[in-house]
Amino acid sequence: MHNYKELQLLFGAKLEEEISQISQREPKYLYEPVIYTLQMGGKRLRPVLLLMAHELFNEKFETTMPVAIAIEMFHNFTLLHDDIMDNAELRRNHPTIHVKYSSNTAILSGDAMSILSYEYLNRCKSDNFREIFDVFTQTALKICEGQQYDMDFEREDHTTVDDYLRMIGLKTAILIAASLKIGALAANAPNNEADLLYDFGYNLGMSFQLRDDYLDSFGNTSTFGKNIGGDIVSNKKTFLMLTAMELAKGDTETTLKQAISSDITPDEKIKQILSIYNQLEIGRLTIEKMEEYYNKALLCWENLNVPNNKKQNLLLLANKMMNRTS
Amino acid sequence: MHNYKELQLLFGAKLEEEISQISQREPKYLYEPVIYTLQMGGKRLRPVLLLMAHELFNEKFETTMPVAIAIEMFHNFTLLHDDIMDNAELRRNHPTIHVKYSSNTAILSGDAMSILSYEYLNRCKSDNFREIFDVFTQTALKICEGQQYDMDFEREDHTTVDDYLRMIGLKTAILIAASLKIGALAANAPNNEADLLYDFGYNLGMSFQLRDDYLDSFGNTSTFGKNIGGDIVSNKKTFLMLTAMELAKGDTETTLKQAISSDITPDEKIKQILSIYNQLEIGRLTIEKMEEYYNKALLCWENLNVPNNKKQNLLLLANKMMNRTS
Repeated sequence: MHNYKELQLLFGAKLEEEISQISQREPKYLYEPVIYTLQMGGKRLRPVLLLMAHELFNEKFETTMPVAIAIEMFHNFTLLHDDIMDNAELRRNHPTIHVKYSSNTAILSGDAMSILSYEYLNRCKSDNFREIFDVFTQTALKICEGQQYDMDFEREDHTTVDDYLRMIGLKTAILIAASLKIGALAANAPNNEADLLYDFGYNLGMSFQLRDDYLDSFGNTSTFGKNIGGDIVSNKKTFLMLTAMELAKGDTETTLKQAISSDITPDEKIKQILSIYNQLEIGRLTIEKMEEYYNKALLCWENLNVPNNKKQNLLLLANKMMNRTS
Repeated sequence: MHNYKELQLLFGAKLEEEISQISQREPKYLYEPVIYTLQMGGKRLRPVLLLMAHELFNEKFETTMPVAIAIEMFHNFTLLHDDIMDNAELRRNHPTIHVKYSSNTAILSGDAMSILSYEYLNRCKSDNFREIFDVFTQTALKICEGQQYDMDFEREDHTTVDDYLRMIGLKTAILIAASLKIGALAANAPNNEADLLYDFGYNLGMSFQLRDDYLDSFGNTSTFGKNIGGDIVSNKKTFLMLTAMELAKGDTETTLKQAISSDITPDEKIKQILSIYNQLEIGRLTIEKMEEYYNKALLCWENLNVPNNKKQNLLLLANKMMNRTS
């Protein structure tokens, strides 16, 4: 059994091999941005989870590596196209593709990445290939749906906390869930175990995204890696903001609406909104929601019919994702 | 055995059924542009060729319909994204998606169409599914490569006629080729017959694209459906222009370069370039190239080990595509 770090290294080595294959392909301007995107780094969380789930039922995961590549390729494709749509200039401290090259290059190289992910998927040798294909494709489609909801919410006035939770479920949690399920299916795990891993991943992913929202307002600048309050300044409809909008009444509601719409400095806006968050105990409510999902994930983990010493790495990784020490 | 018109109707009815299924999906702003694109019409050439190839070996093509949908879906996805990249405002006389909605919508709905094509592909029941998947995916990737070459050529000075032929091979001919091959594979045709159909389609596709280039300069406005000289005005590097650039020497070369780069009215530019085309016999050379590919296609058709009465419809369709009466 391998831990996160070990699987990250094994996967990273395999990915580098594949990148060197891809670099032989032409035309250069189609594949260079693909390689640039893949080499930006990232935690390789999804392929590692896939391999970890595989190891629970079958330790020989070498033939499943192409499926792990497919998942990472697809994830990076979504980031590439999302960055065009969000007009993001940086990703992991590197210029995004549409900035470094052009929008057209970013669109087309993204399309190629999406198709390449299916090329890798088709190298899967598992008897469960058709089911893996189905989970992969349904997940891919739902991620597009999540991105569309996210864009819709920016235009709409009536987004609820429940809408938001459904959206992050589609946009973030289900790919984590599907990675685990696909790993299990590729290892011929029993269906109910594969489904438990899916639920584990879904709840973990939800908790993980809520943690991200939380840290944007209440994180420590030195460890968070980006400036505090970015979501607040850009009027992003996060769990925190939507909860505040649902709870704020009377004067608080008025103050909140003013802070959102008035033309004040970013620092002043952060200060005013954080004060309302504190007043409404938004931090506590967010942590409670995170814990709720995390505890659901733990329950799934406990119910997995796999010896504790085998499934321990999965729990350690979940804790690491949530930055916990226990 | 069904002819083009009959298969077009059968496919059209099936596509409408599927569109009505897709229209149930949410979010609306993701799927509405998908439906709009599919309903713009078009000749449904690729799915019809797929079904026609299927019928050569197995007349029961009902279970292969989803694969025909996958091909049409993928083709329409490429048109959607190409229209963003080319900044095209109209497609089949309708506003393009990025004009009617937004670029972001066009990117994301296109992504969804690409994934939807795989969803339909996975409904394929054939024993040859893995090979069909492979042909589909390799073709999809090569279409992206063709589009990239096309964009590269617009920036480069040294594009040759051979480069151009390779590019239209990737961008246009191989999807026609792959549609036929996939139809044959789905009907469990012998491999060499499936390959002959691929070559038939490739050469037909090449001939078809060259005909399009030819008509843009030498077509009859009333039957061509768009204005003559559009490629000339936009300095498009077509087979005609690249052949002229390779053949023009001395004064003709100077006149050609001047006509391309100088700031004259579109009508004057068309007049000058057409005069050079006539001088260099570009029309005749293009027709000869078309014929060369078409004759190669005919040879493949003749070599198909299928009774003449069965394969007649394929020849009729090829003739129709080339607008021939014999």
